[in-house]
Amino acid sequence: MSPTSDIVRPSKELIEGLKHISSATATGELSRLGVRNAQIIGPRSWTPGAVAVGPALTLQFMPKREDLYDVNEYADPERQLHRHVLYHTQPGDIVVVDARGDLGSGVFGEMMLTYFKGRGGAGVVIDGCIRDYTHAQHLDLPMWLKGVTPNFHTQTNIVPFAVNVPIACNNVLVMPGDIIVADDDGVVVVPIKLAPQLLLTAGEHAEWEEFSRMRLSEGGDLRKYYPLSEGARAEYEAWRREQES
Amino acid sequence: MSPTSDIVRPSKELIEGLKHISSATATGELSRLGVRNAQIIGPRSWTPGAVAVGPALTLQFMPKREDLYDVNEYADPERQLHRHVLYHTQPGDIVVVDARGDLGSGVFGEMMLTYFKGRGGAGVVIDGCIRDYTHAQHLDLPMWLKGVTPNFHTQTNIVPFAVNVPIACNNVLVMPGDIIVADDDGVVVVPIKLAPQLLLTAGEHAEWEEFSRMRLSEGGDLRKYYPLSEGARAEYEAWRREQES
Amino acid sequence: MSPTSDIVRPSKELIEGLKHISSATATGELSRLGVRNAQIIGPRSWTPGAVAVGPALTLQFMPKREDLYDVNEYADPERQLHRHVLYHTQPGDIVVVDARGDLGSGVFGEMMLTYFKGRGGAGVVIDGCIRDYTHAQHLDLPMWLKGVTPNFHTQTNIVPFAVNVPIACNNVLVMPGDIIVADDDGVVVVPIKLAPQLLLTAGEHAEWEEFSRMRLSEGGDLRKYYPLSEGARAEYEAWRREQES
Amino acid sequence: MSPTSDIVRPSKELIEGLKHISSATATGELSRLGVRNAQIIGPRSWTPGAVAVGPALTLQFMPKREDLYDVNEYADPERQLHRHVLYHTQPGDIVVVDARGDLGSGVFGEMMLTYFKGRGGAGVVIDGCIRDYTHAQHLDLPMWLKGVTPNFHTQTNIVPFAVNVPIACNNVLVMPGDIIVADDDGVVVVPIKLAPQLLLTAGEHAEWEEFSRMRLSEGGDLRKYYPLSEGARAEYEAWRREQES
Amino acid sequence: MSPTSDIVRPSKELIEGLKHISSATATGELSRLGVRNAQIIGPRSWTPGAVAVGPALTLQFMPKREDLYDVNEYADPERQLHRHVLYHTQPGDIVVVDARGDLGSGVFGEMMLTYFKGRGGAGVVIDGCIRDYTHAQHLDLPMWLKGVTPNFHTQTNIVPFAVNVPIACNNVLVMPGDIIVADDDGVVVVPIKLAPQLLLTAGEHAEWEEFSRMRLSEGGDLRKYYPLSEGARAEYEAWRREQES
Amino acid sequence: MSPTSDIVRPSKELIEGLKHISSATATGELSRLGVRNAQIIGPRSWTPGAVAVGPALTLQFMPKREDLYDVNEYADPERQLHRHVLYHTQPGDIVVVDARGDLGSGVFGEMMLTYFKGRGGAGVVIDGCIRDYTHAQHLDLPMWLKGVTPNFHTQTNIVPFAVNVPIACNNVLVMPGDIIVADDDGVVVVPIKLAPQLLLTAGEHAEWEEFSRMRLSEGGDLRKYYPLSEGARAEYEAWRREQES
Repeated sequence: MSPTSDIVRPSKELIEGLKHISSATATGELSRLGVRNAQIIGPRSWTPGAVAVGPALTLQFMPKREDLYDVNEYADPERQLHRHVLYHTQPGDIVVVDARGDLGSGVFGEMMLTYFKGRGGAGVVIDGCIRDYTHAQHLDLPMWLKGVTPNFHTQTNIVPFAVNVPIACNNVLVMPGDIIVADDDGVVVVPIKLAPQLLLTAGEHAEWEEFSRMRLSEGGDLRKYYPLSEGARAEYEAWRREQES
Repeated sequence: MSPTSDIVRPSKELIEGLKHISSATATGELSRLGVRNAQIIGPRSWTPGAVAVGPALTLQFMPKREDLYDVNEYADPERQLHRHVLYHTQPGDIVVVDARGDLGSGVFGEMMLTYFKGRGGAGVVIDGCIRDYTHAQHLDLPMWLKGVTPNFHTQTNIVPFAVNVPIACNNVLVMPGDIIVADDDGVVVVPIKLAPQLLLTAGEHAEWEEFSRMRLSEGGDLRKYYPLSEGARAEYEAWRREQES
Repeated sequence: MSPTSDIVRPSKELIEGLKHISSATATGELSRLGVRNAQIIGPRSWTPGAVAVGPALTLQFMPKREDLYDVNEYADPERQLHRHVLYHTQPGDIVVVDARGDLGSGVFGEMMLTYFKGRGGAGVVIDGCIRDYTHAQHLDLPMWLKGVTPNFHTQTNIVPFAVNVPIACNNVLVMPGDIIVADDDGVVVVPIKLAPQLLLTAGEHAEWEEFSRMRLSEGGDLRKYYPLSEGARAEYEAWRREQES
Repeated sequence: MSPTSDIVRPSKELIEGLKHISSATATGELSRLGVRNAQIIGPRSWTPGAVAVGPALTLQFMPKREDLYDVNEYADPERQLHRHVLYHTQPGDIVVVDARGDLGSGVFGEMMLTYFKGRGGAGVVIDGCIRDYTHAQHLDLPMWLKGVTPNFHTQTNIVPFAVNVPIACNNVLVMPGDIIVADDDGVVVVPIKLAPQLLLTAGEHAEWEEFSRMRLSEGGDLRKYYPLSEGARAEYEAWRREQES
Repeated sequence: MSPTSDIVRPSKELIEGLKHISSATATGELSRLGVRNAQIIGPRSWTPGAVAVGPALTLQFMPKREDLYDVNEYADPERQLHRHVLYHTQPGDIVVVDARGDLGSGVFGEMMLTYFKGRGGAGVVIDGCIRDYTHAQHLDLPMWLKGVTPNFHTQTNIVPFAVNVPIACNNVLVMPGDIIVADDDGVVVVPIKLAPQLLLTAGEHAEWEEFSRMRLSEGGDLRKYYPLSEGARAEYEAWRREQES
Repeated sequence: MSPTSDIVRPSKELIEGLKHISSATATGELSRLGVRNAQIIGPRSWTPGAVAVGPALTLQFMPKREDLYDVNEYADPERQLHRHVLYHTQPGDIVVVDARGDLGSGVFGEMMLTYFKGRGGAGVVIDGCIRDYTHAQHLDLPMWLKGVTPNFHTQTNIVPFAVNVPIACNNVLVMPGDIIVADDDGVVVVPIKLAPQLLLTAGEHAEWEEFSRMRLSEGGDLRKYYPLSEGARAEYEAWRREQES
C-alpha cells in the first residue's frame, strides 16, 4: 500500500530466542564476533523496566531544504514519510529513527504512537525526540529517546526523507531488518547475519552465576566466586544439590 | 518595595484559557503564527506530570566580574537580585531564569523556593540549576531545570545581574510578562501579543480525536482514522451518538 | 593481597559527623575555606534519595593502547584493576572512578557491584557508566553516574590503569582517602585535611530555619524571615517556646 | 565504467554566470528565494583566496560495521567507493563529502587528490578531513575542510558508503548535481532548480557600491552612502561621469 | 544622532599607556588585582600580528522572535542596530559584539567594516562571525572573530538587540567603555576602573628580561637566568654596562 | 638536578630513521601493527611546514585544588613542575603536555620556550595552549597546540601535577620516552616498543609513487596508476630507465 519498501523479517524463533538475552550480553557477544560498536549511544530508556527485541523498520531524517519540501503539498498526509514507516508495522516490529540527534523536533506524537502500538509495534528507538510525551508515556509502549519536545518536526529544520533504508543512528549503522535488543542499559543493534550465532551463545549462561551472586552479596571473596574458582566448585555443587532437592 | 520593575500581567481570562492548551498545541499554533522557535531547549521537567501556565518574571545572570561584584557588600541580602525577582511574585507567576546554561551554579535553594511557593508562585524555569533539590523536590512546585547542584551561585562564575528585563534562555528570547506554557514536553514561551490569537484556537480541538485514538489503539487504519477520513465519518458519528445517549 | 595500595581512612567520628551535612552545606563551607570547585560536575544520582558519605577508593582509566594492553593476558582476572580497587573495600568506602566521561563503556557490572555491596561498600561515583543497570538498580547501592550502557569496558577505548592514585573526575581532583559527600544534589569531594574544619561548622545550623521555612511556606515576607530579621526574633522565640512546651 | 551513477551537470553558461557571484551574495539571494540554510557550517577554506563554483559529486560515509565491511575484500581498490566518486570527475566538478564531521579520519590522500586535480576537478568540500596535507597543500586545488589528519579512513570508524546520493553535510542537504559556490567566506549549496533564478540576480549588482566604498573608506557618512541616499546621488553621478571620461 | 547611547571614553593618556602592555601582561596583572577571567575565550586573531587597544562600543544580539522583529520594518536601515553601534565610532574605538557564539551569522559585511575603518575604528571583537571576509581581510582592520560566514544576520536566528549596554562575550562581562587589549594571544577586557592601576604596572617591566632571553636562547640555565638569580646579577650588570657604552 | 625522573631515550639511529617517515605513514603502519588510535586529535600545527621527531618528555596537569596548591609556596620557582619538565631537556626532545584541553590556560610563555629551544628542544605538543604567542611564534620552535591565550596557568583552574609519568593527551596514552612524529597532518605517538618495527617499514616506500603521481597529475587513469597496475609496469620501467640515464 505504501510506495516505500517493507523489510525482510527474521524468523519468530530467532526473535524469541534473543528475548532471553540482555543488551549487555548482546553487545559483549557481538564484540567477540568482531563488532566494536553495537550500542547506539544517545537514546536512553524513557520507559523504565521495558524491554524490546524485534526487527528494525528504519526512518531517515535529513536537513530541510525549502526547494524540495513544499509545506502545502506535504499537507497531504499520504506524502508524509513518518506515516509510511508506520504503515509497514507488523506485530513485534521496532521503529528506529535517525533524527540527527535533534533535541527540538518531535518525530512522532501521541496519535502516531497509538496507531503503532495498536498495530502491535514493540518499541521505538529515536536518535532524537517524540512530542506529546504527556500522553504518550501512558501508552505502555517501550521507548528509547534522546528527549521529548512539544515541537512537531514540520516546524523544524529536519524532515523525514526515506523509509527502510540504511541509517546511521549516531555512531551505529542500522540496516532495515536488523534486530534491536533494548532494555534499561540502552539499545543494541544485532546485525541480522550475526543473529543466529548470537542465539547459540544465548543458552550458555553460567549456571553458577546465581550461586556466586548470593555468596558475593553475603561478602564472599570475589576471587573465589567470580568467576567461580576451582576451590569453590565443591561448595557450589553442594548448594546446587540442595536447591534441587 | 524593590527598586527593580514589576511586570504587566495578562488578564486572568487569558491565563485560564491557555491552561487548556498543552505545550505541544501551543508551539504548533505559534509556528502557524510565524514564530519558529517557541520552545526553550534545555530545561526539562524535574516534576513529572506538573503543568504551569502563567506570566514570566525574568532574571538574568551574567559572568561574574570581581571589580563589579563585591562579596562583602553583596552579603547584604537586599542587594541580591535573585531575591528581588521573587519579591515581585504574585499568585500564578512563573520565574524564568537565564543562568547561562551553567551546570554547577544553583540559582535558588530550598528557602527561596519555599518563599516563592508560599507567595503563590506557579513554577520555575531555569536554563541552569537549583540547589537543595533533596528538599526542594518535596515542595510541590513545578520546576523545569537543566540540572541540580549543591553549589550556590555566589561560589561560582555567574551572578544575578538584572530583573524583569528581556532575557535569552538558550535559543529563545523571553520578555517580562510573556506567558509560559510548560508541561512534561518542555517549556514554551507565548509572546504576550500573540496570546489572544492562541487562545482563540484553543477551543478548536478536533472532536473526533477521542474516537480516532480509540480506533487506532485497536489496530485501526491510520489513513482512515487520522486525520478522520470522509469514509470514517459515518462511523464516527454513529459512535458519537452512542456516547451521548 | 592486592599489589595496589590501600588508602588511609579517616576516623569513624569524622565520617559520622559529616553524615549530618548535605552536599549543599559541604560545598558552601568548602567555598568559604577557599576551595572553589568541590562538586564533581557530570555524575548525577541514579538512586533517588540515596546519600553516601565515606572515604574515596580511586580508580583511574586511561585511553587503551594495544601495545600495552594484551587482551589475552588481561583475561586473567587478577590483572584486572577494576577488580583490585574493589579488593580494598571496607565497610563505608566509596569507589570513585575517572572513566574519562565515556558514555559507552561500563566500568562495573552487576557481579562486581554485588561484591562491593556485600563487602559493605557505601556508594559508587563514576565520571562514566556502569552496565547491567537492569539488575544493578535493585542492589540498594547508592550510585552517581553519567549514564548506563550495555558495553563492558574491555570492548571499548578506555582501560583501568591505576588504583588509589590521584584522579581527576571531570573538573575536580580526588585524592585517595578524601571524603565524598553525595546526595540528590550531586557529589562533593571534601579534601581530607579540611574535613575536621568542615565538621566544626556542621553543628552550627541555624535553629530558626525550621521556623522561617514554615513562615515562608505560609506566604511570609522573605525580608523578615530569611535570614531571620531582628523584627521577627520575638515571634520566633515565642514559637520556639511553644514548640518546647 | 563505475557501477555508481554519474550526475546530471548544469550548462556551462549557468556555471560561468555563477562564477561572478560570491558565496555571500549567493546565500543572501537564496534566503530571499526561501532557502534558510544554504551554508554548510563547519568546513572552512584551507586554501586562502581560492574560489570554486561547480556541480557536486557526492560521497556519503557511514559508521563502520565489521559484518558489512571486510577489510580483505576491500583491499581490492575497485571496491573502494571514495575512488569511485573520483572516477566520475569531469573538468569543473566539485567533490562534496559527508564524512560525519570526523576529525580523525582522512577521506582523501595526496594521490587521490592529485588524480582529481589531474582530471580537472575544481574543488573539494569535506565535512571532515583529508590526510597528506603536507603535500596536498601544494596541489593548487581549492579545499574546504574541517581539518587534516594523518589517519586514513580505513583505520577509523567510518567507511565510504554511497556515491552520488543525497547527503547531509552537517546542517545542509546536498543533492548530486547541485551547484557549489565556495570562497573564503565558506561553502554555499545552490539547489539546482534555483540556480537560474540566482543567475538572473547576479548581474544586478549595485553600480554605486564602488563609489560608496570609497567614500566610506574616507570617513563618509554611512547614512548618506550606504545604501546610497537620494542626497548623495548627484555626487555619485558626477563621480561616475568623471570615471568614464 | 543615534537614539542609542554613546560611551564615556577614557583619557588618551590611559589608552596610550596601555598600548605598551601585551594582552598577556594585562591578564596577568588583572589576575593579581582580583579579576579571574579577563580573556574572552573564543574569538581569535584573524589579522595576524595586529594589535588593538581602545574603549569598547558594545552590541548585543538576541535570539530572533518574529513577533518583535518585522523584516519589512527593519528594511529601514535606520532601525538596524548594528549600524547604530558604528554611528558612535570615534578614532581608536573597538566594537565588541556578543553574537552568541553563532558560527552561521555574519554581524558585519565589507561595507560596514569599511565605514568603521574610515571613521578611525581600531578593531573588531566578535563572539561570532563577519561576512565578506574575502574583501574585509584587505581592509587593514584588526579583527578577533570566531569565524567567517557568507550569511548576513538578517537571514539567521539572531538579531541585533541593544547598543552600548553590558554584554556577555562568552565567559566575560564587557561594560561599554571598558578597555580592550587584543593581540595575537587573544582579547582581554580591562575593567575601566582598574585601568589606571594596570597602567602603573605597565612601566615596571623587568629590565633584565632581554639579557635573560639572550642567555636562555644560548642554552643558559633556567634557574640562573629566569627569574634572574643573585648569582647572575653581576654578569647581567656587566652586560648592561657594555650595552650602554 | 630535578627531583622528577628523566626518561629513557631511544637510540639516535631509531630517531634518525623515523625522520624519514611522515605522520601519515606512521599512523598507517601503526594501524597495521594493531594500534587503532595513534593520532592525538586536537593539537594542530601552529608552525606550518615544521616537522618534529623525538622522544617525549611528559607533563601532566590536574584540576587545581586550593588545599594542595599554595600560591605563595608555589612562588618559589623550584616548586613549579612546568619548569622541571624542561630541566630534563636534551637535544631532540619533545615536550608533550596533557593540559586537559583547556583553552584559557597557557602552559608555557616565551621565556620557557626560549630556554627549551636553547637547550635543543625539538618541539612542543600541548593538548591546550601556550601564551606569549606574539613572541613565541618567532622562536623557530615547532609547536602543535589547541590554541593560544594570554593567561598563565597559575591564574586558572589547572596546575602542573607530575613530570615524566604516563599521560592522556585527549584520546591517546603517551608514555614518557615514546616517540613523537609530528608534521602538518598532526601528531602521532609511536609506542617505543613498536618503533623498531616501524623503522623497518620506513624504507619500503613504493618506488613507483613518483611516476604515478606525475601521470595522475596529467590526468592519467587512477585504476592504471594507483596502485601501479600490471598494465602500467612497462611504461613505468621505461620512464625509470629514462630518469636514470
